[in-house]
Amino acid sequence: MPDAPGDQHMKGGQMQNKKQRPLILVTNDDGIDAKGFRELIGIAREFGEVAAISSQIPMSGMSHAITIKVPIRVRTVLDEEGFRLYQTTGTPVDGVKLSFHTLLGRRPDLLLSGINHGSNSSASILYSGTMGAVMEGAVNHIPSIGFSLLDYRPDADFGASAGVAREVIRLVLEKGLPDGICLNVNIPSLPASEIRGIRFCKQANGYWREEFEKRTDPNGHSYYWLTGFFHNREPKGGGIGTDEWALANHYVSVVPIQTDMTAHAFLEVMKEWETSGIKHGA
Amino acid sequence: MPDAPGDQHMKGGQMQNKKQRPLILVTNDDGIDAKGFRELIGIAREFGEVAAISSQIPMSGMSHAITIKVPIRVRTVLDEEGFRLYQTTGTPVDGVKLSFHTLLGRRPDLLLSGINHGSNSSASILYSGTMGAVMEGAVNHIPSIGFSLLDYRPDADFGASAGVAREVIRLVLEKGLPDGICLNVNIPSLPASEIRGIRFCKQANGYWREEFEKRTDPNGHSYYWLTGFFHNREPKGGGIGTDEWALANHYVSVVPIQTDMTAHAFLEVMKEWETSGIKHGA
Repeated sequence: MPDAPGDQHMKGGQMQNKKQRPLILVTNDDGIDAKGFRELIGIAREFGEVAAISSQIPMSGMSHAITIKVPIRVRTVLDEEGFRLYQTTGTPVDGVKLSFHTLLGRRPDLLLSGINHGSNSSASILYSGTMGAVMEGAVNHIPSIGFSLLDYRPDADFGASAGVAREVIRLVLEKGLPDGICLNVNIPSLPASEIRGIRFCKQANGYWREEFEKRTDPNGHSYYWLTGFFHNREPKGGGIGTDEWALANHYVSVVPIQTDMTAHAFLEVMKEWETSGIKHGA
Repeated sequence: MPDAPGDQHMKGGQMQNKKQRPLILVTNDDGIDAKGFRELIGIAREFGEVAAISSQIPMSGMSHAITIKVPIRVRTVLDEEGFRLYQTTGTPVDGVKLSFHTLLGRRPDLLLSGINHGSNSSASILYSGTMGAVMEGAVNHIPSIGFSLLDYRPDADFGASAGVAREVIRLVLEKGLPDGICLNVNIPSLPASEIRGIRFCKQANGYWREEFEKRTDPNGHSYYWLTGFFHNREPKGGGIGTDEWALANHYVSVVPIQTDMTAHAFLEVMKEWETSGIKHGA
Protein backbone atom coordinates (compact mmCIF):
# COMPACT_ATOMS: atom_id res chain seq x y z
CA MET A 1 0.00 0.00 0.00
CA PRO A 2 1.39 3.44 -0.82
CA ASP A 3 2.28 5.61 2.15
CA ALA A 4 -0.26 8.15 3.34
CA PRO A 5 0.74 11.57 2.02
CA GLY A 6 1.83 13.71 4.95
CA ASP A 7 0.32 16.95 3.67
CA GLN A 8 -3.27 15.77 3.32
CA HIS A 9 -5.17 15.94 6.59
CA MET A 10 -8.79 15.57 5.55
CA LYS A 11 -9.51 12.37 3.70
CA GLY A 12 -12.48 11.42 1.63
CA GLY A 13 -13.95 14.81 0.80
CA GLN A 14 -12.80 14.86 -2.81
CA MET A 15 -13.46 11.23 -3.48
CA GLN A 16 -16.48 11.81 -5.65
CA ASN A 17 -14.48 13.90 -8.11
CA LYS A 18 -12.29 10.94 -9.03
CA LYS A 19 -12.93 9.26 -12.34
CA GLN A 20 -12.23 5.83 -10.88
CA ARG A 21 -15.07 4.47 -8.70
CA PRO A 22 -14.13 4.51 -5.01
CA LEU A 23 -12.67 1.27 -3.66
CA ILE A 24 -14.43 0.31 -0.43
CA LEU A 25 -13.09 -2.31 2.00
CA VAL A 26 -15.86 -3.97 4.03
CA THR A 27 -15.19 -6.13 7.08
CA ASN A 28 -16.87 -7.24 10.35
CA ASP A 29 -16.34 -9.39 13.43
CA ASP A 30 -19.41 -11.67 13.32
CA GLY A 31 -18.02 -13.99 10.66
CA ILE A 32 -18.54 -14.26 6.92
CA ASP A 33 -22.11 -15.59 7.15
CA ALA A 34 -23.46 -12.76 9.32
CA LYS A 35 -26.58 -11.06 7.97
CA GLY A 36 -25.25 -7.60 8.96
CA PHE A 37 -22.08 -8.16 6.88
CA ARG A 38 -24.10 -9.04 3.78
CA GLU A 39 -26.30 -5.97 4.34
CA LEU A 40 -23.28 -3.67 4.55
CA ILE A 41 -21.72 -5.17 1.42
CA GLY A 42 -24.97 -4.47 -0.45
CA ILE A 43 -24.98 -0.83 0.68
CA ALA A 44 -21.26 -0.38 -0.09
CA ARG A 45 -21.79 -1.65 -3.65
CA GLU A 46 -24.14 1.30 -4.26
CA PHE A 47 -21.15 3.62 -3.65
CA GLY A 48 -18.25 1.89 -5.38
CA GLU A 49 -16.14 -1.15 -6.08
CA VAL A 50 -16.12 -3.45 -3.03
CA ALA A 51 -13.57 -5.83 -1.53
CA ALA A 52 -14.90 -7.61 1.55
CA ILE A 53 -13.05 -9.77 4.06
CA SER A 54 -14.31 -11.65 7.08
CA SER A 55 -13.24 -14.39 9.44
CA GLN A 56 -14.09 -18.08 9.30
CA ILE A 57 -15.41 -17.89 12.84
CA PRO A 58 -17.03 -15.05 14.79
CA MET A 59 -14.45 -12.66 16.30
CA SER A 60 -16.62 -10.66 18.69
CA GLY A 61 -14.59 -9.29 21.60
CA MET A 62 -11.30 -9.56 19.68
CA SER A 63 -10.71 -5.81 19.98
CA HIS A 64 -7.51 -4.75 18.16
CA ALA A 65 -5.93 -8.22 18.45
CA ILE A 66 -3.41 -9.36 15.83
CA THR A 67 -2.11 -12.85 15.11
CA ILE A 68 1.58 -13.27 15.81
CA LYS A 69 2.18 -16.85 16.92
CA VAL A 70 0.37 -18.71 14.13
CA PRO A 71 0.31 -18.07 10.39
CA ILE A 72 -2.74 -16.51 8.72
CA ARG A 73 -4.57 -18.07 5.80
CA VAL A 74 -6.83 -16.34 3.32
CA ARG A 75 -9.18 -17.74 0.68
CA THR A 76 -10.84 -15.99 -2.25
CA VAL A 77 -14.55 -16.82 -2.02
CA LEU A 78 -15.75 -14.67 -4.93
CA ASP A 79 -14.03 -12.52 -7.57
CA GLU A 80 -16.42 -10.82 -9.95
CA GLU A 81 -16.70 -7.40 -11.64
CA GLY A 82 -16.68 -4.77 -8.88
CA PHE A 83 -16.89 -7.25 -6.01
CA ARG A 84 -14.40 -9.54 -4.31
CA LEU A 85 -14.99 -11.55 -1.13
CA TYR A 86 -12.24 -13.07 1.04
CA GLN A 87 -12.30 -15.30 4.08
CA THR A 88 -9.42 -15.38 6.59
CA THR A 89 -8.35 -17.37 9.62
CA GLY A 90 -7.12 -14.13 11.20
CA THR A 91 -8.76 -11.48 13.39
CA PRO A 92 -10.62 -8.47 11.93
CA VAL A 93 -7.45 -6.36 12.28
CA ASP A 94 -5.37 -9.08 10.56
CA GLY A 95 -7.90 -9.02 7.71
CA VAL A 96 -7.61 -5.25 7.32
CA LYS A 97 -3.80 -5.38 7.35
CA LEU A 98 -3.74 -8.23 4.84
CA SER A 99 -6.20 -6.37 2.59
CA PHE A 100 -4.09 -3.22 2.59
CA HIS A 101 -0.85 -5.03 1.99
CA THR A 102 -1.67 -7.99 -0.21
CA LEU A 103 -5.25 -8.26 -1.46
CA LEU A 104 -6.51 -4.88 -2.67
CA GLY A 105 -3.89 -3.77 -5.18
CA ARG A 106 -4.59 -0.09 -4.44
CA ARG A 107 -5.28 2.04 -1.40
CA PRO A 108 -8.98 1.89 -0.42
CA ASP A 109 -10.95 5.14 -0.31
CA LEU A 110 -13.19 4.02 2.52
CA LEU A 111 -13.34 1.26 5.14
CA LEU A 112 -16.68 0.04 6.52
CA SER A 113 -17.08 -2.48 9.35
CA GLY A 114 -20.24 -4.27 10.48
CA ILE A 115 -23.11 -4.04 10.55
CA ASN A 116 -22.46 -5.55 13.97
CA HIS A 117 -25.11 -7.66 15.63
CA GLY A 118 -25.17 -5.83 18.99
CA SER A 119 -24.17 -2.47 20.48
CA ASN A 120 -20.65 -1.03 20.47
CA SER A 121 -21.48 2.17 22.36
CA SER A 122 -19.63 3.62 25.36
CA ALA A 123 -16.81 1.43 26.78
CA SER A 124 -17.77 -1.48 24.52
CA ILE A 125 -15.54 0.11 21.89
CA LEU A 126 -12.54 -1.17 23.86
CA TYR A 127 -13.51 -4.81 23.31
CA SER A 128 -15.09 -4.56 19.87
CA GLY A 129 -13.57 -6.41 16.93
CA THR A 130 -15.81 -4.31 14.65
CA MET A 131 -14.22 -1.11 15.95
CA GLY A 132 -10.72 -2.65 16.11
CA ALA A 133 -10.89 -3.00 12.32
CA VAL A 134 -12.16 0.59 12.01
CA MET A 135 -9.34 1.98 14.16
CA GLU A 136 -6.81 0.05 12.05
CA GLY A 137 -8.21 1.94 9.05
CA ALA A 138 -7.85 5.25 10.89
CA VAL A 139 -4.23 4.50 11.90
CA ASN A 140 -3.60 3.97 8.18
CA HIS A 141 -5.30 7.31 7.35
CA ILE A 142 -8.27 5.80 5.56
CA PRO A 143 -11.75 7.22 6.29
CA SER A 144 -13.31 4.44 8.36
CA ILE A 145 -16.78 3.85 9.82
CA GLY A 146 -18.10 1.13 12.11
CA PHE A 147 -21.84 0.33 12.20
CA SER A 148 -23.60 -1.57 15.00
CA LEU A 149 -27.27 -2.39 15.47
CA LEU A 150 -28.60 -2.82 19.02
CA ASP A 151 -29.88 -6.32 18.28
CA TYR A 152 -27.76 -9.42 18.93
CA ARG A 153 -30.03 -11.83 17.09
CA PRO A 154 -28.64 -13.54 13.94
CA ASP A 155 -31.85 -12.64 12.08
CA ALA A 156 -31.92 -8.99 13.28
CA ASP A 157 -33.87 -6.55 11.08
CA PHE A 158 -31.41 -4.23 9.30
CA GLY A 159 -34.13 -2.30 7.46
CA ALA A 160 -33.56 1.01 9.26
CA SER A 161 -29.80 0.41 9.40
CA ALA A 162 -29.53 0.61 5.61
CA GLY A 163 -30.86 4.17 5.57
CA VAL A 164 -28.56 5.18 8.43
CA ALA A 165 -25.51 3.67 6.73
CA ARG A 166 -26.28 5.40 3.42
CA GLU A 167 -26.60 8.79 5.14
CA VAL A 168 -23.38 8.45 7.20
CA ILE A 169 -21.40 7.17 4.19
CA ARG A 170 -22.73 10.10 2.13
CA LEU A 171 -21.64 12.56 4.84
CA VAL A 172 -18.14 11.08 5.09
CA LEU A 173 -17.70 11.01 1.29
CA GLU A 174 -18.77 14.67 1.19
CA LYS A 175 -16.99 16.05 4.28
CA GLY A 176 -14.06 13.65 4.77
CA LEU A 177 -12.52 12.69 8.09
CA PRO A 178 -9.26 14.01 9.61
CA ASP A 179 -6.30 11.63 9.76
CA GLY A 180 -6.45 9.31 12.77
CA ILE A 181 -10.18 9.87 13.42
CA CYS A 182 -12.92 7.34 12.62
CA LEU A 183 -16.64 7.02 13.37
CA ASN A 184 -18.48 4.69 15.75
CA VAL A 185 -22.14 4.51 14.62
CA ASN A 186 -24.74 2.76 16.79
CA ILE A 187 -28.32 2.25 15.63
CA PRO A 188 -31.36 1.68 17.87
CA SER A 189 -33.30 -1.51 17.18
CA LEU A 190 -36.40 0.30 15.92
CA PRO A 191 -38.31 0.70 12.67
CA ALA A 192 -37.02 3.64 10.59
CA SER A 193 -40.23 5.54 11.28
CA GLU A 194 -39.45 5.54 15.02
CA ILE A 195 -35.82 6.68 14.75
CA ARG A 196 -35.70 10.39 15.50
CA GLY A 197 -32.51 11.20 13.55
CA ILE A 198 -28.71 11.22 13.87
CA ARG A 199 -26.85 12.72 16.85
CA PHE A 200 -23.09 13.46 16.95
CA CYS A 201 -22.09 12.35 20.46
CA LYS A 202 -19.30 11.72 22.92
CA GLN A 203 -18.54 8.27 24.34
CA ALA A 204 -20.58 7.75 27.53
CA ASN A 205 -18.63 7.12 30.74
CA GLY A 206 -19.48 3.55 31.63
CA TYR A 207 -18.11 0.07 32.02
CA TRP A 208 -19.06 -3.59 31.96
CA ARG A 209 -19.59 -4.93 35.45
CA GLU A 210 -18.65 -8.55 35.08
CA GLU A 211 -20.42 -11.51 36.47
CA PHE A 212 -18.72 -14.84 35.95
CA GLU A 213 -20.80 -17.96 35.92
CA LYS A 214 -18.85 -20.78 37.56
CA ARG A 215 -19.59 -24.31 36.34
CA THR A 216 -18.09 -27.77 36.82
CA ASP A 217 -17.17 -29.94 33.84
CA PRO A 218 -17.90 -33.71 33.63
CA ASN A 219 -14.41 -34.38 35.01
CA GLY A 220 -15.05 -32.32 38.14
CA HIS A 221 -12.93 -29.32 37.09
CA SER A 222 -14.35 -25.81 37.41
CA TYR A 223 -14.53 -23.26 34.60
CA TYR A 224 -16.00 -19.79 34.10
CA TRP A 225 -18.22 -18.15 31.50
CA LEU A 226 -17.87 -14.38 31.13
CA THR A 227 -21.26 -12.65 31.37
CA GLY A 228 -21.88 -9.18 32.87
CA PHE A 229 -23.97 -6.09 32.29
CA PHE A 230 -23.28 -2.51 31.27
CA HIS A 231 -23.15 0.13 33.99
CA ASN A 232 -23.57 3.77 32.93
CA ARG A 233 -21.61 6.19 35.15
CA GLU A 234 -23.16 9.31 33.60
CA PRO A 235 -25.30 11.51 35.89
CA LYS A 236 -29.02 10.81 36.31
CA GLY A 237 -30.81 11.68 33.10
CA GLY A 238 -28.26 9.60 31.21
CA GLY A 239 -25.57 12.11 30.24
CA ILE A 240 -27.04 14.37 27.57
CA GLY A 241 -24.79 14.43 24.53
CA THR A 242 -23.45 10.90 25.08
CA ASP A 243 -24.05 7.92 22.82
CA GLU A 244 -25.98 6.10 25.56
CA TRP A 245 -28.32 9.08 25.94
CA ALA A 246 -28.89 9.33 22.18
CA LEU A 247 -29.69 5.62 21.82
CA ALA A 248 -32.03 5.61 24.83
CA ASN A 249 -33.84 8.52 23.21
CA HIS A 250 -34.24 6.73 19.86
CA TYR A 251 -31.48 8.57 18.00
CA VAL A 252 -28.62 7.06 16.00
CA SER A 253 -25.34 7.89 17.82
CA VAL A 254 -22.23 8.87 15.83
CA VAL A 255 -19.07 9.22 17.97
CA PRO A 256 -15.80 10.43 16.41
CA ILE A 257 -13.00 8.23 17.82
CA GLN A 258 -9.31 9.12 17.84
CA THR A 259 -6.33 6.78 17.72
CA ASP A 260 -4.21 9.23 19.74
CA MET A 261 -5.02 7.97 23.23
CA THR A 262 -2.93 10.55 25.10
CA ALA A 263 -4.74 12.24 28.03
CA HIS A 264 -3.48 15.66 26.92
CA ALA A 265 -5.02 17.73 29.74
CA PHE A 266 -3.63 15.43 32.43
CA LEU A 267 -0.23 15.43 30.70
CA GLU A 268 0.01 19.14 31.52
CA VAL A 269 -0.66 18.30 35.22
CA MET A 270 1.93 15.54 35.21
CA LYS A 271 4.61 17.86 33.86
CA GLU A 272 4.54 19.53 37.32
CA TRP A 273 5.38 16.23 39.01
CA GLU A 274 8.93 16.12 40.31
CA THR A 275 10.79 12.89 39.85
CA SER A 276 13.88 12.03 41.77
CA GLY A 277 15.37 10.21 38.80
CA ILE A 278 15.68 6.49 38.42
CA LYS A 279 19.12 5.65 39.66
CA HIS A 280 18.44 5.85 43.39
CA GLY A 281 16.34 2.72 43.41
CA ALA A 282 18.16 0.66 40.82
CA MET B 1 -15.87 -5.97 43.50
CA PRO B 2 -17.46 -2.93 45.12
CA ASP B 3 -18.52 -0.19 42.76
CA ALA B 4 -16.16 2.74 42.25
CA PRO B 5 -17.39 5.65 44.38
CA GLY B 6 -18.64 8.35 42.05
CA ASP B 7 -17.37 11.28 44.10
CA GLN B 8 -13.69 10.30 44.18
CA HIS B 9 -11.85 11.40 41.08
CA MET B 10 -8.20 11.00 42.03
CA LYS B 11 -7.28 7.50 43.05
CA GLY B 12 -4.20 6.25 44.85
CA GLY B 13 -2.94 9.44 46.47
CA GLN B 14 -4.04 8.53 49.99
CA MET B 15 -3.16 4.88 49.74
CA GLN B 16 -0.16 5.09 52.02
CA ASN B 17 -2.30 6.34 54.91
CA LYS B 18 -4.27 3.13 55.04
CA LYS B 19 -3.48 0.72 57.85
CA GLN B 20 -3.95 -2.27 55.55
CA ARG B 21 -1.06 -2.82 53.14
CA PRO B 22 -2.04 -1.92 49.56
CA LEU B 23 -3.29 -4.81 47.44
CA ILE B 24 -1.50 -4.83 44.08
CA LEU B 25 -2.68 -6.84 41.07
CA VAL B 26 0.17 -7.77 38.71
CA THR B 27 -0.36 -9.13 35.21
CA ASN B 28 1.34 -9.29 31.81
CA ASP B 29 0.94 -10.64 28.28
CA ASP B 30 4.15 -12.66 27.84
CA GLY B 31 2.94 -15.65 29.84
CA ILE B 32 3.53 -16.81 33.40
CA ASP B 33 7.16 -17.81 32.88
CA ALA B 34 8.31 -14.45 31.48
CA LYS B 35 11.32 -12.91 33.23
CA GLY B 36 9.75 -9.43 33.13
CA PHE B 37 6.64 -10.69 34.96
CA ARG B 38 8.74 -12.17 37.76
CA GLU B 39 10.73 -8.93 38.00
CA LEU B 40 7.55 -6.84 38.34
CA ILE B 41 6.13 -9.17 41.00
CA GLY B 42 9.33 -8.76 43.01
CA ILE B 43 9.09 -4.96 42.81
CA ALA B 44 5.36 -4.95 43.63
CA ARG B 45 5.99 -7.03 46.78
CA GLU B 46 8.15 -4.18 48.12
CA PHE B 47 5.02 -1.98 48.07
CA GLY B 48 2.25 -4.28 49.31
CA GLU B 49 0.36 -7.52 49.21
CA VAL B 50 0.46 -9.00 45.68
CA ALA B 51 -1.94 -11.08 43.63
CA ALA B 52 -0.50 -11.96 40.21
CA ILE B 53 -2.23 -13.55 37.23
CA SER B 54 -0.87 -14.55 33.86
CA SER B 55 -1.78 -16.68 30.88
CA GLN B 56 -0.68 -20.21 30.10
CA ILE B 57 0.59 -19.08 26.74
CA PRO B 58 2.00 -15.73 25.56
CA MET B 59 -0.76 -13.24 24.66
CA SER B 60 1.25 -10.56 22.86
CA GLY B 61 -0.89 -8.67 20.37
CA MET B 62 -4.13 -9.61 22.12
CA SER B 63 -4.99 -5.95 22.76
CA HIS B 64 -8.22 -5.61 24.76
CA ALA B 65 -9.58 -8.99 23.61
CA ILE B 66 -11.99 -10.91 25.84
CA THR B 67 -13.04 -14.55 25.67
CA ILE B 68 -16.71 -15.03 24.85
CA LYS B 69 -17.06 -18.26 22.89
CA VAL B 70 -15.11 -20.62 25.15
CA PRO B 71 -15.06 -20.91 28.95
CA ILE B 72 -12.12 -19.61 30.96
CA ARG B 73 -10.16 -21.71 33.42
CA VAL B 74 -7.98 -20.50 36.26
CA ARG B 75 -5.53 -22.36 38.50
CA THR B 76 -3.95 -21.27 41.80
CA VAL B 77 -0.20 -21.77 41.37
CA LEU B 78 0.89 -20.33 44.74
CA ASP B 79 -0.96 -19.02 47.82
CA GLU B 80 1.34 -17.82 50.57
CA GLU B 81 1.42 -14.91 53.05
CA GLY B 82 1.17 -11.69 51.04
CA PHE B 83 1.52 -13.35 47.63
CA ARG B 84 -0.83 -15.31 45.40
CA LEU B 85 -0.13 -16.44 41.83
CA TYR B 86 -2.80 -17.54 39.34
CA GLN B 87 -2.62 -18.95 35.83
CA THR B 88 -5.49 -18.59 33.36
CA THR B 89 -6.46 -19.84 29.92
CA GLY B 90 -7.92 -16.39 29.19
CA THR B 91 -6.50 -13.20 27.72
CA PRO B 92 -4.82 -10.51 29.89
CA VAL B 93 -8.14 -8.61 30.05
CA ASP B 94 -10.01 -11.81 31.04
CA GLY B 95 -7.48 -12.29 33.84
CA VAL B 96 -8.00 -8.75 35.14
CA LYS B 97 -11.80 -9.12 35.04
CA LEU B 98 -11.65 -12.50 36.78
CA SER B 99 -9.30 -11.10 39.44
CA PHE B 100 -11.62 -8.20 40.20
CA HIS B 101 -14.73 -10.31 40.30
CA THR B 102 -13.68 -13.65 41.70
CA LEU B 103 -10.08 -14.01 42.89
CA LEU B 104 -9.05 -10.94 44.90
CA GLY B 105 -11.72 -10.66 47.59
CA ARG B 106 -11.25 -6.88 47.78
CA ARG B 107 -10.74 -4.01 45.37
CA PRO B 108 -7.05 -3.68 44.42
CA ASP B 109 -5.30 -0.37 45.14
CA LEU B 110 -3.01 -0.60 42.13
CA LEU B 111 -2.69 -2.61 38.91
CA LEU B 112 0.71 -3.21 37.30
CA SER B 113 1.24 -4.92 33.93
CA GLY B 114 4.51 -6.15 32.43
CA ILE B 115 7.36 -5.74 32.43
CA ASN B 116 6.77 -6.39 28.74
CA HIS B 117 9.55 -7.84 26.64
CA GLY B 118 9.46 -5.24 23.83
CA SER B 119 8.23 -1.69 23.22
CA ASN B 120 4.61 -0.55 23.55
CA SER B 121 5.21 3.07 22.52
CA SER B 122 3.22 5.09 19.95
CA ALA B 123 0.55 3.14 18.01
CA SER B 124 1.74 -0.18 19.49
CA ILE B 125 -0.57 0.56 22.41
CA LEU B 126 -3.51 -0.39 20.16
CA TYR B 127 -2.29 -4.00 19.80
CA SER B 128 -0.69 -4.49 23.21
CA GLY B 129 -2.07 -7.10 25.60
CA THR B 130 0.04 -5.48 28.34
CA MET B 131 -1.76 -2.18 27.84
CA GLY B 132 -5.16 -3.86 27.29
CA ALA B 133 -4.94 -5.12 30.88
CA VAL B 134 -3.90 -1.64 32.08
CA MET B 135 -6.83 0.04 30.32
CA GLU B 136 -9.19 -2.51 31.86
CA GLY B 137 -7.92 -1.34 35.25
CA ALA B 138 -8.51 2.30 34.29
CA VAL B 139 -12.08 1.57 33.10
CA ASN B 140 -12.65 0.11 36.57
CA HIS B 141 -11.16 3.24 38.20
CA ILE B 142 -8.07 1.53 39.59
CA PRO B 143 -4.71 3.33 39.25
CA SER B 144 -2.98 1.26 36.57
CA ILE B 145 0.51 1.29 35.05
CA GLY B 146 2.01 -0.69 32.16
CA PHE B 147 5.77 -1.18 31.90
CA SER B 148 7.63 -2.21 28.74
CA LEU B 149 11.35 -2.64 28.11
CA LEU B 150 12.67 -2.08 24.59
CA ASP B 151 14.21 -5.56 24.45
CA TYR B 152 12.27 -8.53 23.04
CA ARG B 153 14.72 -11.18 24.24
CA PRO B 154 13.48 -13.69 26.86
CA ASP B 155 16.67 -13.07 28.91
CA ALA B 156 16.46 -9.25 28.63
CA ASP B 157 18.27 -7.29 31.39
CA PHE B 158 15.67 -5.65 33.64
CA GLY B 159 18.29 -4.06 35.94
CA ALA B 160 17.48 -0.45 35.02
CA SER B 161 13.74 -1.24 34.71
CA ALA B 162 13.50 -2.02 38.42
CA GLY B 163 14.58 1.50 39.38
CA VAL B 164 12.20 3.03 36.83
CA ALA B 165 9.27 0.95 38.06
CA ARG B 166 9.95 1.86 41.71
CA GLU B 167 10.03 5.57 40.88
CA VAL B 168 6.83 5.54 38.78
CA ILE B 169 4.95 3.42 41.35
CA ARG B 170 6.10 5.82 44.10
CA LEU B 171 4.83 8.81 42.07
CA VAL B 172 1.43 7.19 41.44
CA LEU B 173 1.04 6.15 45.09
CA GLU B 174 1.85 9.74 46.10
CA LYS B 175 -0.06 11.71 43.43
CA GLY B 176 -2.83 9.32 42.35
CA LEU B 177 -4.32 9.12 38.87
CA PRO B 178 -7.67 10.53 37.70
CA ASP B 179 -10.46 8.06 36.97
CA GLY B 180 -10.18 6.61 33.47
CA ILE B 181 -6.51 7.55 33.00
CA CYS B 182 -3.61 5.09 33.17
CA LEU B 183 0.12 5.21 32.38
CA ASN B 184 2.09 3.67 29.52
CA VAL B 185 5.77 3.47 30.60
CA ASN B 186 8.47 2.50 28.10
CA ILE B 187 12.08 1.96 29.12
CA PRO B 188 15.12 2.16 26.84
CA SER B 189 17.28 -0.95 26.73
CA LEU B 190 20.28 0.70 28.40
CA PRO B 191 22.20 0.41 31.67
CA ALA B 192 20.73 2.66 34.41
CA SER B 193 23.80 4.88 34.22
CA GLU B 194 23.00 5.75 30.58
CA ILE B 195 19.29 6.53 31.11
CA ARG B 196 18.90 10.31 31.31
CA GLY B 197 15.68 10.39 33.36
CA ILE B 198 11.89 10.21 33.03
CA ARG B 199 9.90 12.27 30.51
CA PHE B 200 6.10 12.76 30.56
CA CYS B 201 5.13 12.49 26.90
CA LYS B 202 2.37 12.29 24.32
CA GLN B 203 1.84 9.25 22.09
CA ALA B 204 3.88 9.67 18.88
CA ASN B 205 1.95 9.73 15.60
CA GLY B 206 3.04 6.55 13.86
CA TYR B 207 1.89 3.18 12.61
CA TRP B 208 3.10 -0.30 11.77
CA ARG B 209 3.70 -0.71 8.07
CA GLU B 210 2.99 -4.37 7.51
CA GLU B 211 4.94 -6.77 5.45
CA PHE B 212 3.48 -10.23 5.12
CA GLU B 213 5.78 -13.11 4.39
CA LYS B 214 4.01 -15.56 2.10
CA ARG B 215 4.99 -19.23 2.40
CA THR B 216 3.72 -22.55 1.10
CA ASP B 217 2.95 -25.46 3.43
CA PRO B 218 3.94 -29.10 2.70
CA ASN B 219 0.48 -29.66 1.16
CA GLY B 220 0.96 -26.83 -1.36
CA HIS B 221 -1.34 -24.31 0.38
CA SER B 222 -0.14 -20.76 0.96
CA TYR B 223 -0.11 -18.97 4.32
CA TYR B 224 1.13 -15.64 5.67
CA TRP B 225 3.25 -14.53 8.61
CA LEU B 226 2.66 -11.02 9.89
CA THR B 227 5.92 -9.06 10.09
CA GLY B 228 6.27 -5.29 9.52
CA PHE B 229 8.16 -2.29 10.87
CA PHE B 230 7.24 0.86 12.74
CA HIS B 231 6.90 4.07 10.75
CA ASN B 232 7.09 7.37 12.68
CA ARG B 233 4.95 10.13 11.11
CA GLU B 234 6.30 12.85 13.41
CA PRO B 235 8.27 15.70 11.74
CA LYS B 236 12.01 15.40 11.19
CA GLY B 237 13.78 15.57 14.55
CA GLY B 238 11.40 12.91 15.82
CA GLY B 239 8.55 14.90 17.36
CA ILE B 240 9.89 16.53 20.54
CA GLY B 241 7.65 15.68 23.47
CA THR B 242 6.55 12.32 22.06
CA ASP B 243 7.37 8.92 23.53
CA GLU B 244 9.39 7.98 20.44
CA TRP B 245 11.51 11.10 20.82
CA ALA B 246 12.11 10.45 24.54
CA LEU B 247 13.15 6.83 23.96
CA ALA B 248 15.46 7.73 21.06
CA ASN B 249 17.09 10.27 23.36
CA HIS B 250 17.67 7.73 26.17
CA TYR B 251 14.79 8.87 28.40
CA VAL B 252 12.05 6.73 29.94
CA SER B 253 8.70 7.75 28.36
CA VAL B 254 5.56 7.99 30.51
CA VAL B 255 2.36 8.64 28.49
CA PRO B 256 -0.98 9.21 30.29
CA ILE B 257 -3.63 7.24 28.35
CA GLN B 258 -7.37 7.85 28.52
CA THR B 259 -10.19 5.36 28.03
CA ASP B 260 -12.48 8.09 26.66
CA MET B 261 -11.61 7.77 22.97
CA THR B 262 -13.90 10.58 21.77
CA ALA B 263 -12.24 13.04 19.38
CA HIS B 264 -13.71 16.01 21.29
CA ALA B 265 -12.33 18.81 19.08
CA PHE B 266 -13.59 17.16 15.90
CA LEU B 267 -16.96 16.49 17.54
CA GLU B 268 -17.45 20.28 17.64
CA VAL B 269 -16.74 20.42 13.88
CA MET B 270 -19.17 17.57 13.18
CA LYS B 271 -21.97 19.31 15.02
CA GLU B 272 -22.04 21.77 12.09
CA TRP B 273 -22.68 18.95 9.62
CA GLU B 274 -26.21 18.92 8.30
CA THR B 275 -27.85 15.56 7.94
CA SER B 276 -30.89 14.96 5.84
CA GLY B 277 -32.22 12.37 8.26
CA ILE B 278 -32.28 8.68 7.70
CA LYS B 279 -35.67 7.94 6.27
CA HIS B 280 -35.05 9.10 2.73
CA GLY B 281 -32.73 6.23 1.93
CA ALA B 282 -34.37 3.45 3.90
